[in-house]
Amino acid sequence: MTLNPLLDLKFHREISIAPTRIWEGWTNPATLMQWFCPRPWKVIECEIDLRPGGIFRTVMQSPEGTRMPDNLGCFLAIEPRQRLVWTNALGPGFRLKPQANDEGLGFFFVVDLRLESLPNGGTNYTAVVMHQDAVGKQAHEAMGFQEGWGIALDQLVELMK
Amino acid sequence: MTLNPLLDLKFHREISIAPTRIWEGWTNPATLMQWFCPRPWKVIECEIDLRPGGIFRTVMQSPEGTRMPDNLGCFLAIEPRQRLVWTNALGPGFRLKPQANDEGLGFFFVVDLRLESLPNGGTNYTAVVMHQDAVGKQAHEAMGFQEGWGIALDQLVELMK
Repeated sequence: MTLNPLLDLKFHREISIAPTRIWEGWTNPATLMQWFCPRPWKVIECEIDLRPGGIFRTVMQSPEGTRMPDNLGCFLAIEPRQRLVWTNALGPGFRLKPQANDEGLGFFFVVDLRLESLPNGGTNYTAVVMHQDAVGKQAHEAMGFQEGWGIALDQLVELMK
Repeated sequence: MTLNPLLDLKFHREISIAPTRIWEGWTNPATLMQWFCPRPWKVIECEIDLRPGGIFRTVMQSPEGTRMPDNLGCFLAIEPRQRLVWTNALGPGFRLKPQANDEGLGFFFVVDLRLESLPNGGTNYTAVVMHQDAVGKQAHEAMGFQEGWGIALDQLVELMK
């Protein structure tokens, strides 16, 4: 897909486990809760309804035990073991959330995650995060997007290998 | 589906032609251009890529011949002859449009159109338009939502019967 450098962040890595294991990690709530945010942060709630317009909700807890606002979104496209698209700009039933009012992050984005099988049995793992505006992209980058996604993916691979 | 009276507008009618004819009218650009806006307004361009994230773009022309800004959106869900969901808040490839910046209307919404077969061969035609905020809903209502959708649907039925 074509990137827009003003709006998009891309995370890419070749990993050693198969797409089917990654898919399981992303789509099973009990599994996702174990890797989705870098420790010692925790995911304390997770809701996944894996169909277009279905809810994707997580709640994180700080190392001090503070519950963060809900991260609420929905799925937009689901191609098992190959592609998962979701956004925090729409809630369940494709309902648009109020403008600039994501309690969790303060900006809206769409994640397009692609998994490709590698000849060695591993996965070409590529996430493109498309933001609504340049300010959101810059804020996400400054929050440590690359490092955060990298640590979370390490946790996912460790869990599912 | 559950309506939110602060955000949603609903248009419903029982019509005499079958869902398959309505579907053709909504999804074929050359056909859509003939009914989609109340005459003497015209649709002078239409682009439809009927898949999730695919473009839905129309351009209207006033009776005086003035070209309006593009109405740009994308499809979110497609269930042939039964359900069509699209939005003007995202463009092709599920890209979020800038906030409050729909050149065509100035507000964002999601349309969830449902077609149900009636025993007499006709269609139960229901569109729920879910707005991002109450201001958008009120503006859409004040623009003559019910009348506009009614006239357009009359044109569609006349064309496809």
